[in-house]
Amino acid sequence: MGKYAIGIDFGTESARAVLVDVSDGSELSSAVYEYSDGVIDERLPGTDIRLEPDWALQNPMDYVRAVQDTVPRALREAGVPAEDVIGLGIDFTACTMLPTRADGTPLCALDAYRNNPHAWVKLWKHHAAQPEADQVNETARQRGETWLQRYGGKISSEWFIPKALQILHEAPEIYEAADRMIEAADWIVWQLTGVETRNSCTAGYKAIWSKREGYPSPDFFAALHPRMRDIVDEKMSRDILPLGARAGGLTAEMARATGLPEGTAVAVANVDAHVTVPAARVVETGTMVMIMGTSTCHMVLGDEERIVPGMCGVVEDGILPGLHGYEAGQSCVGDHFAWFVERCVPAEYQAEAERRGIGIHALLEEQAAALKPGESGLVALDWWNGNRSVLVDVDLTGLLIGATLATRPEEIYRALIEATAYGTRVIIEAFEEHGVAVQDIVAAGGLPERNRLLMQIYADVMGREFKVIGTQQGGALGSAMHGAVAAGAAAGGYDDIVQAAERMGKLKDEVYRPIAEHTAVYDRLYAEYRTLHDYFGRGENDVMKRLKAIRAESRAG
Amino acid sequence: MGKYAIGIDFGTESARAVLVDVSDGSELSSAVYEYSDGVIDERLPGTDIRLEPDWALQNPMDYVRAVQDTVPRALREAGVPAEDVIGLGIDFTACTMLPTRADGTPLCALDAYRNNPHAWVKLWKHHAAQPEADQVNETARQRGETWLQRYGGKISSEWFIPKALQILHEAPEIYEAADRMIEAADWIVWQLTGVETRNSCTAGYKAIWSKREGYPSPDFFAALHPRMRDIVDEKMSRDILPLGARAGGLTAEMARATGLPEGTAVAVANVDAHVTVPAARVVETGTMVMIMGTSTCHMVLGDEERIVPGMCGVVEDGILPGLHGYEAGQSCVGDHFAWFVERCVPAEYQAEAERRGIGIHALLEEQAAALKPGESGLVALDWWNGNRSVLVDVDLTGLLIGATLATRPEEIYRALIEATAYGTRVIIEAFEEHGVAVQDIVAAGGLPERNRLLMQIYADVMGREFKVIGTQQGGALGSAMHGAVAAGAAAGGYDDIVQAAERMGKLKDEVYRPIAEHTAVYDRLYAEYRTLHDYFGRGENDVMKRLKAIRAESRAG
Repeated sequence: MGKYAIGIDFGTESARAVLVDVSDGSELSSAVYEYSDGVIDERLPGTDIRLEPDWALQNPMDYVRAVQDTVPRALREAGVPAEDVIGLGIDFTACTMLPTRADGTPLCALDAYRNNPHAWVKLWKHHAAQPEADQVNETARQRGETWLQRYGGKISSEWFIPKALQILHEAPEIYEAADRMIEAADWIVWQLTGVETRNSCTAGYKAIWSKREGYPSPDFFAALHPRMRDIVDEKMSRDILPLGARAGGLTAEMARATGLPEGTAVAVANVDAHVTVPAARVVETGTMVMIMGTSTCHMVLGDEERIVPGMCGVVEDGILPGLHGYEAGQSCVGDHFAWFVERCVPAEYQAEAERRGIGIHALLEEQAAALKPGESGLVALDWWNGNRSVLVDVDLTGLLIGATLATRPEEIYRALIEATAYGTRVIIEAFEEHGVAVQDIVAAGGLPERNRLLMQIYADVMGREFKVIGTQQGGALGSAMHGAVAAGAAAGGYDDIVQAAERMGKLKDEVYRPIAEHTAVYDRLYAEYRTLHDYFGRGENDVMKRLKAIRAESRAG
Repeated sequence: MGKYAIGIDFGTESARAVLVDVSDGSELSSAVYEYSDGVIDERLPGTDIRLEPDWALQNPMDYVRAVQDTVPRALREAGVPAEDVIGLGIDFTACTMLPTRADGTPLCALDAYRNNPHAWVKLWKHHAAQPEADQVNETARQRGETWLQRYGGKISSEWFIPKALQILHEAPEIYEAADRMIEAADWIVWQLTGVETRNSCTAGYKAIWSKREGYPSPDFFAALHPRMRDIVDEKMSRDILPLGARAGGLTAEMARATGLPEGTAVAVANVDAHVTVPAARVVETGTMVMIMGTSTCHMVLGDEERIVPGMCGVVEDGILPGLHGYEAGQSCVGDHFAWFVERCVPAEYQAEAERRGIGIHALLEEQAAALKPGESGLVALDWWNGNRSVLVDVDLTGLLIGATLATRPEEIYRALIEATAYGTRVIIEAFEEHGVAVQDIVAAGGLPERNRLLMQIYADVMGREFKVIGTQQGGALGSAMHGAVAAGAAAGGYDDIVQAAERMGKLKDEVYRPIAEHTAVYDRLYAEYRTLHDYFGRGENDVMKRLKAIRAESRAG
């Protein structure tokens, strides 16, 4: 009799549950729920309360609805007995965090607070905590905090402490009312199990925790703000569970809502990108897994701790037990192409795509694929959503250079793809220059499946082979694998994630190989990218920041 | 009984005849002819012969057809007796030139040559003679040719000598077969009168002629190419007529084709931008006339010769007799916005414009007008068609900086308008810094009439008042004025262009005044533009040129 696990992948716009056979990772069914409030970046739902630029919120009730909607559908579609589902795992965008009462009730669910934007979930791409990130970084540098180098020398405005500090600065009443501040990943596990847990992945990568040193000291937090001195003990937790651990069993209420047996093993939460590494059957050092979606996360495993400029973080046990997990990131990849398609593609292209019954991305890909490297004369800096790789600077903005009156949309589209490839090459070179080997690359996420041109451009720009994960649902599969580990071998699952990866992980046979003549041209274009990258990104000309400052004044004035 | 004159303005895509009352300049009728072959930049008409990038040709027969089509229609529509039309003037884009037989037959009209692209008209925006322009400039510098400084230190690839040299380099058989090489402006006057003339405006601004020094020496031409030594005497002319002079009378054949009396006075040719100055009633020093269309020309009159970096040229008697005419230019203005509308505006905007029954430019203007200066966070370099102002470098390309995922089409549209305004400010500052006063500005051409936002942005960026010419047909009106001068006072016209300007020139009462708060923001944005302008335009980072070189290799390879 088969055993099954369910993984739920909480993305930016929707959540997806996948029901997986524990014996070989085959995906029997899946179900998607689009968050009804989506990304909240203009007005608080049901109000006229406008959000500032750079804000991005979510409604936590969307996460609960996603579980209640997707799990029963996935169960039904798979047609397997619910009692054979031995484990449930989840993964989430991060840092996506919220303030709650002691019982887990989100403050935004309470009438007293719902009109305060700070009571809502701050989504990963909420970028309004930059002043707080600056303060965290400046304070850490002044105090000589050694943990800073584990994060490439900069804490991002996307992470937990800057977001918490923004709440304290701008809405102290919310900070006070928040008995808990918690990653949405851990919060949904809490809703599933009734047990509040914290996982080593988000704690390590997003909240400055390390296995050996714990959190920054109360003195450090007090230097940020006196009220923050005891934030860890008051509102967070020092009890950090390793990945694959059992957070608890499914509550009776959630069992009723989902159709799963009460007590089904639920793994501690994980992050979407990190959980994809074992799903791509990567359990050893030297292989980079790139999860390419709206943004790209780059994950590599290493034997020891190395300091790499601009990396998002190195966390022992952060991806796989016993290894140091390195993370780097690009904040604008699929989002970049989506922006272009939505904002910049003329009507005649839309009409042609419709006439031919293909998607607009497919049409642009086809036309861009007819171009040779360098033929457009364009180079872009892929900073439409800031830079969170070696520069770690959200105030950087996009640049397109080389346009002429003959420039066509597909040329810009290709230039944007190329720009994201150059951004990846910067990251790989930074790892290699600082002692973290990158021999192989595996692409995962939604983009590799959808855009073959993009994969070939990446192989050409990198001058390396690209393999591709064998599933479109790497996050959900990885989560299901962790659910199987939480259940344990005795229940029909696995005792560790390495075993689960060997049995359940998936890699395609197909390989994208670099074309030497293309790589030769891209080496020259990449040199131009690097020059522009350093000129605009390292302080020689801070025009992007000044324009953002003028923009902010203009909107305020 | 009234007297009338006709002006024909030969533009980039079409020609327009306007019939004008000589007494007060009122426009009684007009007629437009769209060139049937338009701008030829992909394939030679009726063939599979592909053109290289940067080529732009025209068919001279389109010019003849334009005369034969528009003049009879304008006459009919005005309903005036043909015998009361006392003069005809024309103005043209420049340098737009062609090789012909001794009798004026264009080489492209002959079977032996029509399949050779070099036999066709090279339109002003043909940019493929850059190597030749480089050679002209380098040779002039080496020989210490003093005339070079009259052209801002650089001869443009758009001008006559580089274009002629390109023919000699790439198609020596065409060069040999060309008995004459001539501006299209002078060529159409030749077709009208049967008399070959050359005018002081195109000779001075485009063919390195000056009233005091004549053309460069045969030694100079020989240094470019031995076969070129005697180009002036072999294929051009040293007999240069002043503006307003009578080229001849209308031929019997052209009289039949147009319905005008045989012998009607035809003025020597003029250039579209230059002829607009008196049409805007500007006959004194210190007032800049900006002719804003696909590109912008900036014309100022001065009492003496000053050397201004990057100006297109200073020509004594080049605009008005007795004064030094200064010209500067921006090569991408209306073209810029047209490119954007054609290539970058999404379907939903098109749909909204259609639903509301307004043009897409009007919709974008409306939405862009709702933005405050600086609100978009964008700055662009307006070099989509190179830079022909202070940098005189056609290998420069466009740049857009500051884009984010929230950037909307109307923000880019506004940034492109602003970029052209910054480009104008660079030019005005260069004039002022070098002793050519610019107290007032008058805008002319198609754009000021169509886009109020653009005019306000220009006033705000410049921090100066903008007046507007009182006609949408400044070129044709100016040409008609020159036709009236060619006819002379005795025939009911005028004896000089100053008199004609006082009576026939037109200026609106409306004035665009700068808004101080806007100017304050634009001063800051302009500082950013200047920094980028100098960084990318003055050799610090020649990425634009390298990208163009890679593009050329890619297309060739």
